[in-house]
Amino acid sequence: MDYLQILREIEQEISPLKNEGEVASYIPQLQKVNPDHFGICLQFLNNDCFGLGHCDKAFSIQSISKVFSVTMVYSMLGEMLWQRVGVEPSGTAFNSLVQLEYEKGIPRNPFMNAGALVVCDILCEHFDQPKDELLKFVRHLAGDQSIDFNIEVALSERDAGYKNIAMANFLKAYGNLHNKPSKVLETYFFMCSIEMSCRQLAQSFLFYAQHGQGKSLYPLTESQGKRLNALMQTCGFYDEAGEFSFKVGLPGKSGVGGGIVAIYPKKYSVAVWSPRLNKKGNSVLGLKALELLTSKSGLSIF
Amino acid sequence: MDYLQILREIEQEISPLKNEGEVASYIPQLQKVNPDHFGICLQFLNNDCFGLGHCDKAFSIQSISKVFSVTMVYSMLGEMLWQRVGVEPSGTAFNSLVQLEYEKGIPRNPFMNAGALVVCDILCEHFDQPKDELLKFVRHLAGDQSIDFNIEVALSERDAGYKNIAMANFLKAYGNLHNKPSKVLETYFFMCSIEMSCRQLAQSFLFYAQHGQGKSLYPLTESQGKRLNALMQTCGFYDEAGEFSFKVGLPGKSGVGGGIVAIYPKKYSVAVWSPRLNKKGNSVLGLKALELLTSKSGLSIF
Amino acid sequence: MDYLQILREIEQEISPLKNEGEVASYIPQLQKVNPDHFGICLQFLNNDCFGLGHCDKAFSIQSISKVFSVTMVYSMLGEMLWQRVGVEPSGTAFNSLVQLEYEKGIPRNPFMNAGALVVCDILCEHFDQPKDELLKFVRHLAGDQSIDFNIEVALSERDAGYKNIAMANFLKAYGNLHNKPSKVLETYFFMCSIEMSCRQLAQSFLFYAQHGQGKSLYPLTESQGKRLNALMQTCGFYDEAGEFSFKVGLPGKSGVGGGIVAIYPKKYSVAVWSPRLNKKGNSVLGLKALELLTSKSGLSIF
Amino acid sequence: MDYLQILREIEQEISPLKNEGEVASYIPQLQKVNPDHFGICLQFLNNDCFGLGHCDKAFSIQSISKVFSVTMVYSMLGEMLWQRVGVEPSGTAFNSLVQLEYEKGIPRNPFMNAGALVVCDILCEHFDQPKDELLKFVRHLAGDQSIDFNIEVALSERDAGYKNIAMANFLKAYGNLHNKPSKVLETYFFMCSIEMSCRQLAQSFLFYAQHGQGKSLYPLTESQGKRLNALMQTCGFYDEAGEFSFKVGLPGKSGVGGGIVAIYPKKYSVAVWSPRLNKKGNSVLGLKALELLTSKSGLSIF
Repeated sequence: MDYLQILREIEQEISPLKNEGEVASYIPQLQKVNPDHFGICLQFLNNDCFGLGHCDKAFSIQSISKVFSVTMVYSMLGEMLWQRVGVEPSGTAFNSLVQLEYEKGIPRNPFMNAGALVVCDILCEHFDQPKDELLKFVRHLAGDQSIDFNIEVALSERDAGYKNIAMANFLKAYGNLHNKPSKVLETYFFMCSIEMSCRQLAQSFLFYAQHGQGKSLYPLTESQGKRLNALMQTCGFYDEAGEFSFKVGLPGKSGVGGGIVAIYPKKYSVAVWSPRLNKKGNSVLGLKALELLTSKSGLSIF
Repeated sequence: MDYLQILREIEQEISPLKNEGEVASYIPQLQKVNPDHFGICLQFLNNDCFGLGHCDKAFSIQSISKVFSVTMVYSMLGEMLWQRVGVEPSGTAFNSLVQLEYEKGIPRNPFMNAGALVVCDILCEHFDQPKDELLKFVRHLAGDQSIDFNIEVALSERDAGYKNIAMANFLKAYGNLHNKPSKVLETYFFMCSIEMSCRQLAQSFLFYAQHGQGKSLYPLTESQGKRLNALMQTCGFYDEAGEFSFKVGLPGKSGVGGGIVAIYPKKYSVAVWSPRLNKKGNSVLGLKALELLTSKSGLSIF
Repeated sequence: MDYLQILREIEQEISPLKNEGEVASYIPQLQKVNPDHFGICLQFLNNDCFGLGHCDKAFSIQSISKVFSVTMVYSMLGEMLWQRVGVEPSGTAFNSLVQLEYEKGIPRNPFMNAGALVVCDILCEHFDQPKDELLKFVRHLAGDQSIDFNIEVALSERDAGYKNIAMANFLKAYGNLHNKPSKVLETYFFMCSIEMSCRQLAQSFLFYAQHGQGKSLYPLTESQGKRLNALMQTCGFYDEAGEFSFKVGLPGKSGVGGGIVAIYPKKYSVAVWSPRLNKKGNSVLGLKALELLTSKSGLSIF
Repeated sequence: MDYLQILREIEQEISPLKNEGEVASYIPQLQKVNPDHFGICLQFLNNDCFGLGHCDKAFSIQSISKVFSVTMVYSMLGEMLWQRVGVEPSGTAFNSLVQLEYEKGIPRNPFMNAGALVVCDILCEHFDQPKDELLKFVRHLAGDQSIDFNIEVALSERDAGYKNIAMANFLKAYGNLHNKPSKVLETYFFMCSIEMSCRQLAQSFLFYAQHGQGKSLYPLTESQGKRLNALMQTCGFYDEAGEFSFKVGLPGKSGVGGGIVAIYPKKYSVAVWSPRLNKKGNSVLGLKALELLTSKSGLSIF
């Protein structure tokens, strides 16, 4: 199959949608991005790699980072992890406090903000410098020491992220944070501020395409690797996980910076980026591009 | 791989759990079943078939029937179907009215009771005898004309199914039923009362393992077939879809009669049955057996 | 105080609002009313009575009837009644199923539709012809044998009242209806269809102004009479009970037919009617008229 | 009427309940109280005053303080106040975030924690030292300069009050706090830590029995005074306002320190204190004592 040709077709076919959606605006730093950028990078396990557009431009990966942090704690704690966070889709908006209240402080999954805060709390329990440890892991996965936090974004989230501050204190009230909310939040905000390009993301997600096997600072068993992929499938897209499964048919994770990464187990990873988001917080062009990719290649997992 | 050997190992390894869970009790007819029965049938696309235990004994398929009915209306309406029912996991118990109220009468997916009622309403719009048309389709898929409703179960649900009656009237209040609630409910109750064996279920689900391709009264396009599989993956297990994806890693559907069917695309279908249910309404032994099957065979989709 | 003069001032001062709001439209029969009608009747315990406008024209009293039915069952069961229905404001829209689900089938108070259905169920347990018994009580309280059901309205509600049908079946599912939902619903729909004028309502509510004392088919103790008034104060106006207490300061009950009745204990009762409703289902002119009445007379209970 | 005799009878009649309920335990300082204390003080507008038991012992007034703070902002802002906080009962537990989320950051009433935080925010907008200004007002109302904060309690709440911290940040996220959450919270925690005796509370609530008339640092119009009383009636007892109206029939306010104050307009105020609370957070003996008081004196407002 001529994958570069497929990517070119995709780039053309999505262009009618290019003005749809809005760039995330809840912090000013995220609005500074050029809304018209689009990049995609398809990386095969056999090392073939196909990139297009702004596939080498770093952007704010935001919630995609939650995959990295949950990998670390899953590797360290094993199945014990699931006593503090669930594996079920939420069925509500990603920052909802409602469900957390009904379910007594156990977040439904580690990709909701509340669940990611619990994951960050576990990192704080195990490391003196949790955010540095996380960055080390990400750089290792991507094989690129230039990856870094955007401190301006992190500080901006800290100053404006009232819902996340509320959430952390709420979790603390239910006893599901063991560290001070402010410490957990700092780790969380820095984690979300990591900047990577499509190429770096695709490279780092090969780890998941291989079921977390191979050399890694935080290795997973094959079963754990599959389970993490299943979790991305059912919970990786806020309240749009069903739609993504339905139309794209791959496990993946999105972020409000406009990035989406997905994998086809044993075969490839793919990262796409475009800043304009739909109402549910996912990249409009990114979703469409991945839908076209699995249609054209016939490679969905279903 | 020696699949029969694998099934035998599974049968042994699940036996410590054999007294866990409770048989569904909301209607007396479902309680009459022998709680100790266990059957499993693994059916490959190449016609290899491996069965064990009570794999030829018919049981009440209950919610598994929702896969058949949604297939019919998806085949007839195409993507228009999704204007009346969503494709997202619910995040709440399967018979919850709460979400329906917040979302103005559009059920989150066709496998929740509310969504299945909308599907039955569409069957009522298109057929004079919707339940007979459904039975014809099921018999055709399974290649077995002996499959039938259990009228006693259907009537019993009609007399005791107050939550479903409430739900149908609630949908009607929101304008998302076009027929009389009583007519839609009759179709629904008969649909759920269909009795099939593991072997018959496995046979009929080959259709989904082939992406709805091949001769069928209600054919699907390949894309539609994949999408239906994705829907089973994210929504097929009430409020335990995440857990099932996580542990089993196959698209499937369960019913309160204790049956579960799952498929591995392009390869096999598998049906398992055991009447004792966990708190979320899924068969205890069935879940464990499928978890062991994908572990032992290494064949999850992730 | 010159009460007739006060009523005349009120009539003038409310006129700027006369086109605000919408007549209830969920059944066609309620829409047939002249939206511009306005009537008010102030009835003192000493028999002084002041009426104005369409104060002798009968209208559909709808939910006001719930005061009469709860009086009957409170008189018969005493404090045992509160095992099946609560005395707390709902904090949600009057026909919400949500709270009922969280609270396992015990409605928050007898003035919500769900609570009134439980009350009707109790009437069905005690009487062969519950709706006739209710009508007898209402005629007795008002001293007027001409009061009657509007059968057209009752049948229309039966055919279109899907939310109420849903609610009754939901209560049945939780075991809090002892009769068939259809029987309870018939009583409920007929109860709501009673037609009375402001004068008849004011007359019948003298019973509550006297704390349910005096000759009555269903007498209350003084304590019960006060408690029923307290219940009207906290729960009588759907999700606007706080607002009504705040602005009017009297116990009362409204209906979607546009009627409102209120009492000043030991002194008077007042009924007002105007069909245009605000978004919360209460009469726009009725609310304003009562607010002006307590302001001008200085007679709120607070 | 011999009110002292009535109080003595009440003291005896409540004694069978004296071991029921639990002292508030969410902060250690509140647990240090002697759980067996009981005091009551009945203060008439004509200056007659009847006290019993520990009626001169100061205790933590907690949420009762919310009446004082809302009085100040109502006096300053008038009806504009209700743009930022509602006047409806909540229908949910007093610290619920759920309703706040559905209603976009406008708390249902100023006696819920969220509503009181908005009130404290307004105090912070108007005063450099809001908590000192509040204390000055309370001392003035009670005519007693010895009233003070319990700094230990205030600091303890600040360190452990995660739900309130969550709530403040949540309100900030919705734009309904104009100051920094930490500043508003400090005011809130100090406000709740005020200690007063039953006698001091009864004295200070004469202001409300007089509809906020008379000399005051923060005077209310008569209409405002009545409205504030109405608000206490419908919202003063967390999720037990209906029950309190039903059984006691007076406007009032309770606190988790075990205090309750109520008023009979134009006649008297009454404060009662006993630390053991029922499941809804109200004093067991306090509720019973007030129920007996209105029964024995025949003086409920209904």
